[in-house]
Amino acid sequence: MSLQALFNPRGVALCGSTSPGKIGFELLRNMVEGGYGDVYAVNPKAQGALGAPGFAAVADIGRPVDLAIVAAPVRAVMSVLEDCGRAGVSAAVIITAGFSEVGNEEGEEAIREVAAKHGIRFVGPNCAGIVNTRHDLYPTLETRPPAGDVAFISQSGALGGAVLAWAEKQGVGFSKFVSYGNAADLNEIDFLEYLMEDDETKVAALYIETVSDGRGFVEAARALTAQKPLVVIKSGRTRSGQRATLSHTGSMAGSDTVYDEAIRAAGAIRVHTIEEMFDLCKGFVSLPPVRGRKVAIVTNSGGPGVLAADRAEEVGLDVAPPSAKLRERLEAFLPSYCAFENPFDMTVEGDEEGYRRTLSAVLEEYDAALAIDVCTPYLDSLSHARGVCDAAEVSGKPVAANFMADKTVAAALPHLKARGVPDFVTGERAVAVLAQMARYAVAREDRRPLPEIPAEEHALPGRGALLEPEAMTLLAEHGIPVPEFRFAPDLRSAVDGCTALGYPVVMKVVSADILHKSDAGGVALDIRNEGMAEAAFLRIEQAASGHDFRGVVVYPMVRAAQEVLLGLSRDPQFGSVVVFGLGGIYTEVWRDIVLRLAPVDRRGAEEMIRSIHGYPILTGIRGQPPGDLDALADVLVNFSQLPFRYPEIVEVDLNPVFVRSDGVLVGDVRIIHKEQING
Amino acid sequence: MSLQALFNPRGVALCGSTSPGKIGFELLRNMVEGGYGDVYAVNPKAQGALGAPGFAAVADIGRPVDLAIVAAPVRAVMSVLEDCGRAGVSAAVIITAGFSEVGNEEGEEAIREVAAKHGIRFVGPNCAGIVNTRHDLYPTLETRPPAGDVAFISQSGALGGAVLAWAEKQGVGFSKFVSYGNAADLNEIDFLEYLMEDDETKVAALYIETVSDGRGFVEAARALTAQKPLVVIKSGRTRSGQRATLSHTGSMAGSDTVYDEAIRAAGAIRVHTIEEMFDLCKGFVSLPPVRGRKVAIVTNSGGPGVLAADRAEEVGLDVAPPSAKLRERLEAFLPSYCAFENPFDMTVEGDEEGYRRTLSAVLEEYDAALAIDVCTPYLDSLSHARGVCDAAEVSGKPVAANFMADKTVAAALPHLKARGVPDFVTGERAVAVLAQMARYAVAREDRRPLPEIPAEEHALPGRGALLEPEAMTLLAEHGIPVPEFRFAPDLRSAVDGCTALGYPVVMKVVSADILHKSDAGGVALDIRNEGMAEAAFLRIEQAASGHDFRGVVVYPMVRAAQEVLLGLSRDPQFGSVVVFGLGGIYTEVWRDIVLRLAPVDRRGAEEMIRSIHGYPILTGIRGQPPGDLDALADVLVNFSQLPFRYPEIVEVDLNPVFVRSDGVLVGDVRIIHKEQING
Repeated sequence: MSLQALFNPRGVALCGSTSPGKIGFELLRNMVEGGYGDVYAVNPKAQGALGAPGFAAVADIGRPVDLAIVAAPVRAVMSVLEDCGRAGVSAAVIITAGFSEVGNEEGEEAIREVAAKHGIRFVGPNCAGIVNTRHDLYPTLETRPPAGDVAFISQSGALGGAVLAWAEKQGVGFSKFVSYGNAADLNEIDFLEYLMEDDETKVAALYIETVSDGRGFVEAARALTAQKPLVVIKSGRTRSGQRATLSHTGSMAGSDTVYDEAIRAAGAIRVHTIEEMFDLCKGFVSLPPVRGRKVAIVTNSGGPGVLAADRAEEVGLDVAPPSAKLRERLEAFLPSYCAFENPFDMTVEGDEEGYRRTLSAVLEEYDAALAIDVCTPYLDSLSHARGVCDAAEVSGKPVAANFMADKTVAAALPHLKARGVPDFVTGERAVAVLAQMARYAVAREDRRPLPEIPAEEHALPGRGALLEPEAMTLLAEHGIPVPEFRFAPDLRSAVDGCTALGYPVVMKVVSADILHKSDAGGVALDIRNEGMAEAAFLRIEQAASGHDFRGVVVYPMVRAAQEVLLGLSRDPQFGSVVVFGLGGIYTEVWRDIVLRLAPVDRRGAEEMIRSIHGYPILTGIRGQPPGDLDALADVLVNFSQLPFRYPEIVEVDLNPVFVRSDGVLVGDVRIIHKEQING
Repeated sequence: MSLQALFNPRGVALCGSTSPGKIGFELLRNMVEGGYGDVYAVNPKAQGALGAPGFAAVADIGRPVDLAIVAAPVRAVMSVLEDCGRAGVSAAVIITAGFSEVGNEEGEEAIREVAAKHGIRFVGPNCAGIVNTRHDLYPTLETRPPAGDVAFISQSGALGGAVLAWAEKQGVGFSKFVSYGNAADLNEIDFLEYLMEDDETKVAALYIETVSDGRGFVEAARALTAQKPLVVIKSGRTRSGQRATLSHTGSMAGSDTVYDEAIRAAGAIRVHTIEEMFDLCKGFVSLPPVRGRKVAIVTNSGGPGVLAADRAEEVGLDVAPPSAKLRERLEAFLPSYCAFENPFDMTVEGDEEGYRRTLSAVLEEYDAALAIDVCTPYLDSLSHARGVCDAAEVSGKPVAANFMADKTVAAALPHLKARGVPDFVTGERAVAVLAQMARYAVAREDRRPLPEIPAEEHALPGRGALLEPEAMTLLAEHGIPVPEFRFAPDLRSAVDGCTALGYPVVMKVVSADILHKSDAGGVALDIRNEGMAEAAFLRIEQAASGHDFRGVVVYPMVRAAQEVLLGLSRDPQFGSVVVFGLGGIYTEVWRDIVLRLAPVDRRGAEEMIRSIHGYPILTGIRGQPPGDLDALADVLVNFSQLPFRYPEIVEVDLNPVFVRSDGVLVGDVRIIHKEQING
């Protein structure tokens, strides 16, 4: 989408009072002080300020105006937009608050309509404005940040403002900033689409509390991440609200897990704090791709080196010792009291040449390096920085720095920055960035198309709940193996069914209104002969009295096997999600389940199976035969397509599913029809 | 211990060259610039510098000198100490490196001897010096830190230096600092003991990579934490080295877990990064105790409030909504568009009075509060700070602040600091501190004496390995229930034993050199009659041929029950540790085990049992009867005392132990004698 008029306007009208102390005045000041020239004040009094001429209407300006910044009172916003529309303005930033965020949905709908009528795309209302540092454009109430390569899109204006104010200290510069407020028109999806093609942005960062169109968000973010990294903070785990519509298995994962998975599926990186966001943006802006997990830590101090190594291992980097050859090379020029393992500790004697040669040598063998310099007041940190930067430049590999602390390294920091070696507050934070970047590089290599969504759509048989035999038949039709079974509406056919299947068998009640069959006395196990079959039927029929009793379904006894569960549920933001886990106490006690957006492809299914903690149990430990994980993956793929083939499905539980060494078999099924939820 | 001469000397001799560029010169400069008056330079040339007079020997000074700072070359340290000793110096800080850290153990032993001869207690060698800000004493190469209430003891000199250099920016001041280097004489234990009685220190912080005397460390730290908080960074997880001497179960926990547990047992708080250490010290220095987990977040901005709330929940705080009464109170004075849940969001309109009144109101109901102020350039952050500080003062409850960011709140920060309201870089970091402090307050309330160590010591029967029947007898004698059993050296007594116990029975080989009995064909299950018993004996005897075959032991079959494991092993630093976990795949796949220093008391045993993740399995889920956890706790207590009753024990594995609804029963035992390890 072209947001040219928004970010590169030919002229800007500030619509609202420009009296000192008013919001409009502050906005105008920020624009004027920021160096944007073509700004005009528009208000009933035609009052200019701070060098910007005043007009009573945008049409009066007589020069091209693409963008309006609206700070008028809430009741005046409509007429301001009408004025703008008449004057050919095509973009607006509506700072004014008092719309849907305080329950004024009608007001918001009204401005949406008038803007649409005039073809005006707008940001807000109830937002903190936008920034385009390359255009000296600062129509915002927030601090003007240093220019740089990061675009930051924030659902929270105040948080956005805090990030801008903090940016200089954090060593991060911005290309664009958008606080999109209530998103009555433009929302995070539009900005992700725009940033994809924005050459001034190397890294995108996003703060969201919620998204309105989950699948649209995933698609836009995926398109963006094909071009550049996207770092996401998603805050505000919803509680009771969303959970109510999730299935039992889905809700155990928690809806925050759905966001986790959606962000992963989008190829973006989720972080949890602003500091992590700054760190990661700094890494992506400055460093070449981190193509591997093997990291060398070169330091002049043991303690900080060890802390960084501890953390590096925790975040999945490989702090491997050097090869014998490299060790030999290092021993040739470093004093013998140095540590030649990894971390490579040159001790306090480490100097410019030491950093240069040691880093150059290790970077031939390692994928990335962290250079730690703990500088005492009497050492020359600048020379150390020079050595580090030289080695980074020559090697072309990613080198992060951790120069400590404060005044003792004040001389080094500008040098590091100028030469593109990012300095992090601690070595721990530096290696966390390297680890994230290494994972990102792998995920990028591994990018593959999203799983295809099945095209045909069918209606579910019947209306409302599916009876167990119907559900089993449906599964079987879609490549999900179910045991042979007999549906029997009466005593005679039940006994015949048992005999036909061959004893021992299991008998279960069929009823539209008995959900927990075992608890209701609706299940009989290990039926060994006709007499037991007859008794079982009568007992089940008796137990079901007062319920909608349709008969029984009979299965052969399944021999013991590892049990797993498969679940489908519908997330309010992201639609169908599929859940997999070990069944029974593993799920109950360890919550060892994994969730993905449905559908999943074969690779996705394999990844799900491998990613549960109890995976070794499925591969066979303690002398158990390995489960048929090929068959399981196929079933997961087929299962995950069901809600697209049958849009009426809102929830399915297959629990247990038996994973045997020669295939899998569904033990029980529950399919919830949308009418059961709505009705 | 009195370290008066070290921290409050009547005079200081700097022993070493004071030529510019030399370490001695830098040390002297730091002392002189730091304002310490009675400092003298001692070196062969009797060369003074920077206003400090020079002498050829300490005895020549002619004024009282309690402390020597030694920066002489490594070969001269001995004679310097001799000189100091003759002149009555009683404390030294040996900066000079080149001792045990580079393999020069003899040199270090020699200076230890000469110091001992003269009654000199010393810090170092190979250290970065000490600081006593209250005495203007800075014999260190590191930055002179701001004065304050935190004492920092560091095994790493460079890390210590980085902390001192960073302190001002972090808003933390120090009372004492010690870099203790090789700890040839004074070590971390001595300093912990000293700090316990040091009125100038309110909070102690410690960086360690290892401790030499684990139990001594725990005792000293426990004594200290009875008086004041201790924050510990322990870095450097050892790998192969320590693990080799740990038992199977012990090594699965990992020796870092032993440190975790030791630090917990000492009543100290472990953190993993320097930033956490600073944050927590700041909290402890400034805030009253946090007596509860219910925290209110008062903010003028949604986003940061939600981020803080997310984190608060993660770290175990209770971000509870307000009572109806409180809500009503707030609605009486806050505008209706504010958020009255928790976080309490006053929006950007929040002002001084808003912070004052809202915080004052919520603090009547909550245990602590976080005040977030996201300040835009046009707001007055100082007035907000005033409101926050007033409320904190009146309430007397802990209030942490998060004023964001940088220049926009520059006016507020000194005000907060002056009035003792700690400001944290993010709300997330602030709530992490409140959570740690809340846990600390609970642990303090809950403090109880360390478990008593049994006094009597016995020799193990026999020599070397204990045979299974011997081990079972030993357990039974110490209140650890074992099944009834018969030891049978030959076929006849084996069959008789089976018959006497009553079928079905289990038969196991007894041998000093078969460790894995099942794998070796040494176990026969479900023996139902004399014929089977005879066959089983012959089969086992056959399988054991070539081994030290002593016969068999026969047990009744134990009916199925939940299996757990109990383990004892010996940690090289901390001695005997006891391990508890669910057995089988729970341990193998989930590593669901808990470890404590042995012995444990009854409360400790109960805490261990409750703290494993799979605890619900023991209490009975899915219709299983609950296990007899009373009996299990008793057994854990008795078990944990074994290595003290039998000092020759280095390792015990009880695996499985059956937890039944009416008691527990050991299923298998292995006791390792120290001669088996040493031999």
